[in-house]
Amino acid sequence: MRDRVLRAALGQPVDTTPVWFLRQAGRYLPEYRRLRERYSLAQLCREPELAAQVTLQPLRRMDVDAAILFSDLLVPLWGMGLEFELAEGRGPVLSTPVCVERLAHLPELDLEALEFVPQTVRLVRAALDRPLVGFAGAPFTVAAYLVEGGPSRDWPRTRALLHRRPEVWHALAARLATNLAAYLRAQVQAGAQLVQLFDSWVGVLSAEDFRWAVRPYLVQLLQAVDGVPRIYFATGCAHLLAEFRDLPVEVVGVDWRVPLSEAAATLGGKAIQGNLDPARLLGDRHALRAEVCRIVAQGRALRGHIFNLGHGVMPETDPDRLAELVDWVHERGSRG
Amino acid sequence: MRDRVLRAALGQPVDTTPVWFLRQAGRYLPEYRRLRERYSLAQLCREPELAAQVTLQPLRRMDVDAAILFSDLLVPLWGMGLEFELAEGRGPVLSTPVCVERLAHLPELDLEALEFVPQTVRLVRAALDRPLVGFAGAPFTVAAYLVEGGPSRDWPRTRALLHRRPEVWHALAARLATNLAAYLRAQVQAGAQLVQLFDSWVGVLSAEDFRWAVRPYLVQLLQAVDGVPRIYFATGCAHLLAEFRDLPVEVVGVDWRVPLSEAAATLGGKAIQGNLDPARLLGDRHALRAEVCRIVAQGRALRGHIFNLGHGVMPETDPDRLAELVDWVHERGSRG
Repeated sequence: MRDRVLRAALGQPVDTTPVWFLRQAGRYLPEYRRLRERYSLAQLCREPELAAQVTLQPLRRMDVDAAILFSDLLVPLWGMGLEFELAEGRGPVLSTPVCVERLAHLPELDLEALEFVPQTVRLVRAALDRPLVGFAGAPFTVAAYLVEGGPSRDWPRTRALLHRRPEVWHALAARLATNLAAYLRAQVQAGAQLVQLFDSWVGVLSAEDFRWAVRPYLVQLLQAVDGVPRIYFATGCAHLLAEFRDLPVEVVGVDWRVPLSEAAATLGGKAIQGNLDPARLLGDRHALRAEVCRIVAQGRALRGHIFNLGHGVMPETDPDRLAELVDWVHERGSRG
Repeated sequence: MRDRVLRAALGQPVDTTPVWFLRQAGRYLPEYRRLRERYSLAQLCREPELAAQVTLQPLRRMDVDAAILFSDLLVPLWGMGLEFELAEGRGPVLSTPVCVERLAHLPELDLEALEFVPQTVRLVRAALDRPLVGFAGAPFTVAAYLVEGGPSRDWPRTRALLHRRPEVWHALAARLATNLAAYLRAQVQAGAQLVQLFDSWVGVLSAEDFRWAVRPYLVQLLQAVDGVPRIYFATGCAHLLAEFRDLPVEVVGVDWRVPLSEAAATLGGKAIQGNLDPARLLGDRHALRAEVCRIVAQGRALRGHIFNLGHGVMPETDPDRLAELVDWVHERGSRG
């Protein structure tokens, strides 16, 4: 098995820089759009054969070093009796708002209701000669969707809940930490060789709020998912970087706003994942190549670097440009 | 005239810490909601008597040290032949998308079409015993609305345009800098005693992109609005703070994610405005008071501090709580 992404995550020597992409399966691929003409987004997530097929689509086009499970951050809610709608491109929206009392008393995860996820993992693993990244949303980010009912820019109701009803917040975050840990462990047991925890929106919090409201539950969750390399990913988190230093993860993913060298200096021994701005893929090819070379060179000076985007692939992206980018990374990252 | 907000902006001694609030006129006030039953948001912006009335509403309830012109970031577009709709709570949406060729060839500002703005300023000044803050959006933030057509979380099409069509970007930003400077100068000539430039969404850019795509136009605009204290405000900008150091402004406004002391250390001699998380106003009263005291104490150690929120007042805010907060700031900030 091609294991350079695992080696880089652990800070071990690699033959070249490994690369994969956030949202590498999705709307920018014509073969994905063809499937979407026949199936809803929920169906693609829930039916193992379809989810596995979508997960594998980018690997037929480009030489990425890992696959990432095709799913949605809110999928585990189906194992907690909560319904939501998946609208392509807009993010998930809860079918009915969740009242505060219910937030404080979410049920334990019913893993059987989510059996399609480990089943997808097994199907992908059987067809794949490189690592599969399992994933889940982090407690703050999943809670933020529950509190707001759908996507938001600054998640103000979530920030307000922390201070208005701290006891509700603690109950919610603790339950999500337990449930999401069980969800990730099920993926690992089925064969996922790394896990990525998406805390996409935690950057709306101050460092002080992060420390009391987020970190304890993150640590609890991450410690319960041991045995595979763990990646923690957040966006807009320059002000929180020092807080991530002590998290029990092997890799921290950063977006295009934090230079890799700065991230590595702040995060001590951890490997770094990132950090091309996905918008650069829509720009000039030569400028893109220069930017890729710059990032690869920066990464080579670190203890471990996994090339990735700073956020998901944009729908307008040319798949051929992305495939070419993979080759540039491997060529410039080569230690041979 | 009560001038402590002007004195703090210039780093001069004050009797107590001055305070005003982003979006202090608006939906959280019942008297504003009553007006909205009779008038559209566009009418409230466009009719000087109404705009002046809304601007003054919060000053009848609370002892804030400044008024801020009631308007919208996109109002100057009415002087560039562009139409948009103002939807309360969702942000402005352009009536028709603006094509790339039009972005590159925006017309010069027709100040006569915007005469209602200086007229509002004059009405407010005639009724007010404290400073009026004029404002405009910064070129990046106004351009972002033009490129995306409406609010966005990460403004990806704007980031993409920088790299896809840099010549279009430069033409657009240069024109906006000229037009927005003229717009702000008109407010100053009519009597605004400070100006605030809102660059609300510039935090989506890396420092490198800020340097080539934003800073030159900011500097051009700010240098053209001399003679009154200038406030530059952005959110989510921890990674850009060092870039703001050399901007020709007297004050930088920061959100709740950047500690005041850190902002001041990075920004050298500038005064700092901020930075209570508006979500804290929905929480426990005693915890709020403690947080306000902490911010006031931090601010007293700086060369100049204007107390404000890190973002706009939330619609759910209790006006009495906000009025009480003003008194807390003045009491704890007192140099007597």
